[in-house]
Amino acid sequence: MESRDFALLTDLYELTMMQGYYETGSYKREVVFDLFYRKNPSGNGYAIAAGLQQAMDYIRNLRFTDEDISYLESLKLFCADFIDYLRDFRFTGEIYAIPEGTIVFPHEPLMRVKAPIVEAQLVETALLNIINHQSLIATKAARVVWAAQGDPVMEFGLRRAQGPDAGTWGARAAVIGGCCGTSNVLTGKLFDVPVKGTHAHSWVMSFPDELTAFREYARLFPDACLLLVDTYNTLESGVPNAIQVFREMQAKGIPLKNYGIRLDSGDLAYLSKKAKAMLEEAGFGDAVISASSDLDENLIASLKLQGAKISLWGVGTKLITSDDCPAFGGVYKLAAEEDENGNFLPKIKLSNNPEKVTNPGIKKIFRIYEKATGKIKADLIGLADETIDETQPLHIFDSNAKWKHMNLAGGSYTVRELLVPVFIDGKQVYESPSVMEIQAYCDREKASLWDEHMRLNNPHIVPVDLTDKLMDLKTKLIDEMSFAKK
Amino acid sequence: MESRDFALLTDLYELTMMQGYYETGSYKREVVFDLFYRKNPSGNGYAIAAGLQQAMDYIRNLRFTDEDISYLESLKLFCADFIDYLRDFRFTGEIYAIPEGTIVFPHEPLMRVKAPIVEAQLVETALLNIINHQSLIATKAARVVWAAQGDPVMEFGLRRAQGPDAGTWGARAAVIGGCCGTSNVLTGKLFDVPVKGTHAHSWVMSFPDELTAFREYARLFPDACLLLVDTYNTLESGVPNAIQVFREMQAKGIPLKNYGIRLDSGDLAYLSKKAKAMLEEAGFGDAVISASSDLDENLIASLKLQGAKISLWGVGTKLITSDDCPAFGGVYKLAAEEDENGNFLPKIKLSNNPEKVTNPGIKKIFRIYEKATGKIKADLIGLADETIDETQPLHIFDSNAKWKHMNLAGGSYTVRELLVPVFIDGKQVYESPSVMEIQAYCDREKASLWDEHMRLNNPHIVPVDLTDKLMDLKTKLIDEMSFAKK
Repeated sequence: MESRDFALLTDLYELTMMQGYYETGSYKREVVFDLFYRKNPSGNGYAIAAGLQQAMDYIRNLRFTDEDISYLESLKLFCADFIDYLRDFRFTGEIYAIPEGTIVFPHEPLMRVKAPIVEAQLVETALLNIINHQSLIATKAARVVWAAQGDPVMEFGLRRAQGPDAGTWGARAAVIGGCCGTSNVLTGKLFDVPVKGTHAHSWVMSFPDELTAFREYARLFPDACLLLVDTYNTLESGVPNAIQVFREMQAKGIPLKNYGIRLDSGDLAYLSKKAKAMLEEAGFGDAVISASSDLDENLIASLKLQGAKISLWGVGTKLITSDDCPAFGGVYKLAAEEDENGNFLPKIKLSNNPEKVTNPGIKKIFRIYEKATGKIKADLIGLADETIDETQPLHIFDSNAKWKHMNLAGGSYTVRELLVPVFIDGKQVYESPSVMEIQAYCDREKASLWDEHMRLNNPHIVPVDLTDKLMDLKTKLIDEMSFAKK
Repeated sequence: MESRDFALLTDLYELTMMQGYYETGSYKREVVFDLFYRKNPSGNGYAIAAGLQQAMDYIRNLRFTDEDISYLESLKLFCADFIDYLRDFRFTGEIYAIPEGTIVFPHEPLMRVKAPIVEAQLVETALLNIINHQSLIATKAARVVWAAQGDPVMEFGLRRAQGPDAGTWGARAAVIGGCCGTSNVLTGKLFDVPVKGTHAHSWVMSFPDELTAFREYARLFPDACLLLVDTYNTLESGVPNAIQVFREMQAKGIPLKNYGIRLDSGDLAYLSKKAKAMLEEAGFGDAVISASSDLDENLIASLKLQGAKISLWGVGTKLITSDDCPAFGGVYKLAAEEDENGNFLPKIKLSNNPEKVTNPGIKKIFRIYEKATGKIKADLIGLADETIDETQPLHIFDSNAKWKHMNLAGGSYTVRELLVPVFIDGKQVYESPSVMEIQAYCDREKASLWDEHMRLNNPHIVPVDLTDKLMDLKTKLIDEMSFAKK
């Protein structure tokens, strides 16, 4: 893994606030921040947590190099003793996080950072940057893969991604979300995920004619002979030339496997049906018909509905940028703060917008499954010292609409806690599974949702409620704040 | 500058095609590829070229490490002799490019790569990734800055950017496009651009009350005291507390400069006018009122229209992701190819979509300025061996609509060529100016457009036409291809 100097990958105000805490002497006071988001991207019914591996790399390698220090000195904003403090800066705190590939919902802490305020403040920006980006792309990929109804989906977006990291970590997130591989070779190398790809129009154009180009490609790559048929004319030239080359391979006794065509322009519904008929008539009904042309989940769903004969999807720009919703919107909010006696006091942020009022205190998330189906019934956000006894009845209610509630009989449900420790006392205590293991885990996670939760538009929403104890605390703090907020 | 191993930052098909060229023995044949785009993002009337510095870093450092080689071997796709060839791979070709900060238009080659086909093919993906991303953000920034009508605009988007590179190089591109600085400290360090920022809600929340938090901030940062006033209640608490702190500073004889407030939520038009009145009444009419809350060019234009009293804009998510258009759409197309005798033959790609037919041959771009105003009259794409004599009359016509044409009298116009050499025989021959120099150059570039070209919606379009010689070549190739394309 590349190790990069990311100590300064932060907003300047984190550093000015850090100096503020340092100067006021409060910098070692422990605080708890929650990293959470408020709204699923693209109108989805859930999101997929991703980014933890890069976030852990960042925390583990977090130190200010001599170059960083010189630069900060050059800004003439910081005093010498604070700068000296930064020279030996390490993250010494505790982080709990939801593992990558987990289905998550709005308002759930994807990460809970407990650390001296000066440390917890610094890491805000980079953690948000990383988790926001990768959760966004994993979620988009899950939508695209859902639309493809079991057909494999390839990630093809590197050239349109927002820079090298977006292409590389984005492709990793896309594989977590369900893509079977990527065209990005660097992602393949860094994360041991399948890389795929055949040839471009320039291959065809660089030969005297299309047939020669196809023949040469088949000769060189007989085991993965997917021919791009739209350089000149898909049905009049590309497909007939491809068929001729497949016949020649057959005649030479070359076993035809992983072979077929790729459509990259035009009316994919029409062309794929016509091409399928031509291939079938020639005895190549098992040839793959792949498509790649500004695809997204909505276009794939539409092509499926039209009966397009496409069995492999290459999705680029609109997946790797999450085109219709290119930001995830995660935030990082103070939830608790140590007092002089070392007790943690819950903190709340009010807002005119009820959605923006934070959940106070040190929290955990309980996921409640229906035992009979294994499906998610609801999530409960509670306080860290709470437990749920699965043998007892459980009453869950919507804190904003108390008439929406459910009673679960003891023994009819199971409970799982989502947050796991990843750093304790500054030491990493969690090792990331491989990306393909995360993908397999994410597949199991998706299986814990009903199809109604996964559909692309107006999905059914999984309830995320608060435990009685957290609800009582929140109500109490709101009351206190409303009377004494100035 | 960080040096990263980007040899594998490419699509797998570039490598399979490279092996194909290698195996057929044609890999040293020189070709010319153009990197261009077809449509301005966000409905803009122009784009701003950016990304050249990172692109040059990539080309200069391009080599396969032992690790890369081992990984490629592990794929079992490549033969030993091709792998051996990669061990000593260097870019040996020639690149011409349009300097960063230049106003550009669709179909103009932003880069022209002339190299052995095996080299020109490899670099496609990374060059597109880099140029697409940074040109996108520079263009979006120019829109936002235009909407702010001379007010400074800060880039604040790191936490919502699509990964570390998107945040860091994106902020650099935003500064090129006209932002006066960024919150991203790493961008500040790497590119020597101004970094800005004060404090977050967590600063206010971590003190017993807002007034104490403001006082402490003013004590620590008297020279840049911009107080965030919306943690509790902007007009009832935030602004009155800020005024009290400014009064206390005044009473202590602390010179008030770079001071003011920041609004981060609510109705910015209403709140800014109310806050302005309160500040004026208290004698702080020169206080800065800054705003940051999901801003983009359209919201800023609307706030300006409403007479909002905001003089400093912090723009985050929607700038750093180019929210309404998160991909630039640049492509990389074969334009010419060496024959056995070492002559370059022009190449064309046809398409059912006339917009997608490429311009053949080795080309250059002439920018035609009206001498009297210094404004751009038109751009002409021509062949590399063409020249234009400014003393002679110039006739320009739209190749798709010949009735649209203009005659410029000799001496009434000036001509500038946009493409400059950046690599010759694999050696970098161009040094990037500093980012702030590029920004100043970009400002001059913008001044060569009329306001009608710069407006946000339905801008007037600068004509980009072909020289007679290029038009004749294109017509001839289209005719040839139409009769002999199979």
